[in-house]
Amino acid sequence: MSNVLTNLGDILEQRKQAAADSSYVASLYHKGLNKILEKIGEEATETIIAAKDAERSGDNSDVIYETADLWFHSLVALAKLGERPEAVLNELARRFNMSGLEEKASRQPE
Amino acid sequence: MSNVLTNLGDILEQRKQAAADSSYVASLYHKGLNKILEKIGEEATETIIAAKDAERSGDNSDVIYETADLWFHSLVALAKLGERPEAVLNELARRFNMSGLEEKASRQPE
Amino acid sequence: MSNVLTNLGDILEQRKQAAADSSYVASLYHKGLNKILEKIGEEATETIIAAKDAERSGDNSDVIYETADLWFHSLVALAKLGERPEAVLNELARRFNMSGLEEKASRQPE
Amino acid sequence: MSNVLTNLGDILEQRKQAAADSSYVASLYHKGLNKILEKIGEEATETIIAAKDAERSGDNSDVIYETADLWFHSLVALAKLGERPEAVLNELARRFNMSGLEEKASRQPE
Repeated sequence: MSNVLTNLGDILEQRKQAAADSSYVASLYHKGLNKILEKIGEEATETIIAAKDAERSGDNSDVIYETADLWFHSLVALAKLGERPEAVLNELARRFNMSGLEEKASRQPE
Repeated sequence: MSNVLTNLGDILEQRKQAAADSSYVASLYHKGLNKILEKIGEEATETIIAAKDAERSGDNSDVIYETADLWFHSLVALAKLGERPEAVLNELARRFNMSGLEEKASRQPE
Repeated sequence: MSNVLTNLGDILEQRKQAAADSSYVASLYHKGLNKILEKIGEEATETIIAAKDAERSGDNSDVIYETADLWFHSLVALAKLGERPEAVLNELARRFNMSGLEEKASRQPE
Repeated sequence: MSNVLTNLGDILEQRKQAAADSSYVASLYHKGLNKILEKIGEEATETIIAAKDAERSGDNSDVIYETADLWFHSLVALAKLGERPEAVLNELARRFNMSGLEEKASRQPE
């Protein structure tokens, strides 16, 4: 399981208590689910355009940046709906016959 | 760093050598970047629609499933362009002042 | 007002009575709004990718084709919700201080 | 053929000569194709979200508004690539065995 995504899940959880003007995420929560979903559409489009430009230029920096934006906003939507990043990782693990939560558990008692 | 995503990155790398008809990922690679990017657009749309339905029904299973599809196809696009999942995680880590690769290193010598 | 779009609006209306297997539009209606909206997302993505390829190749045939697909599926969604193409044209006319329906009326009694 | 869309095509053509700060369309042209395509992705997403809300509320005003936005920005992209709205209408006419340009011609010599 990802520490980065786990930490990001914690941050997204904490921001739910915050005032609308205290951070970008807090302002997104207050604007509501539609505004968060619009960002997913925007970032998916920017990822696609950046990938087309990367295909031509060989420079992948923009497409990495936009993919991070896309994942980030999809996690904000899931957080708004009450889900954590681990739900996505577990679904991916399930598809590829990887252990997800189990893996995390086995890593803990070092 | 995510073991699930690291493992998925390994799988996506291995499939590059495979025959077009040997797996879904191999067939996507052979169809080319445009077809992979179309899938990103499709899965982003399905994520948005599933989120709207989840808002109404309270059942998040579809939106988790579609988000996993969206992340998966964005990783296939990045793999096609020569990038691994860790690139996205490092970008997310950078934004939130988390350590990314460093974190991984510090976790290994248990 | 467009005769092409008016005729298309008539066709979309007629197909509402048709059996699911009688035409593509009839099958879309029966699959429901979500499936129609997925097509809008798909066709928007294909339009964007085709425009990026047209920018490079100078050949606009694909981007015209995909834009027609995008408009068509947005009209199927509107028809499913009970609206006709003229609603979109009137909204465009309103924004640019053109007369829409009025224009049509004034054109008829020549 | 649509007078509204024909007029809009004329407006989009005229704005190509205009200074970047003279209008919204002129500013879009100067920002370039990527920015225009991002707007197509945004407006497609907003159309989809508005349609989901319309399904629930029975109020179609937002989905009509967003569809007009989507069509408008797809026409700006086509204009940037050197195409007029009639190209989309002719493609739609061709699919449904309607006459497009012919229809226009036959209407003129009244």
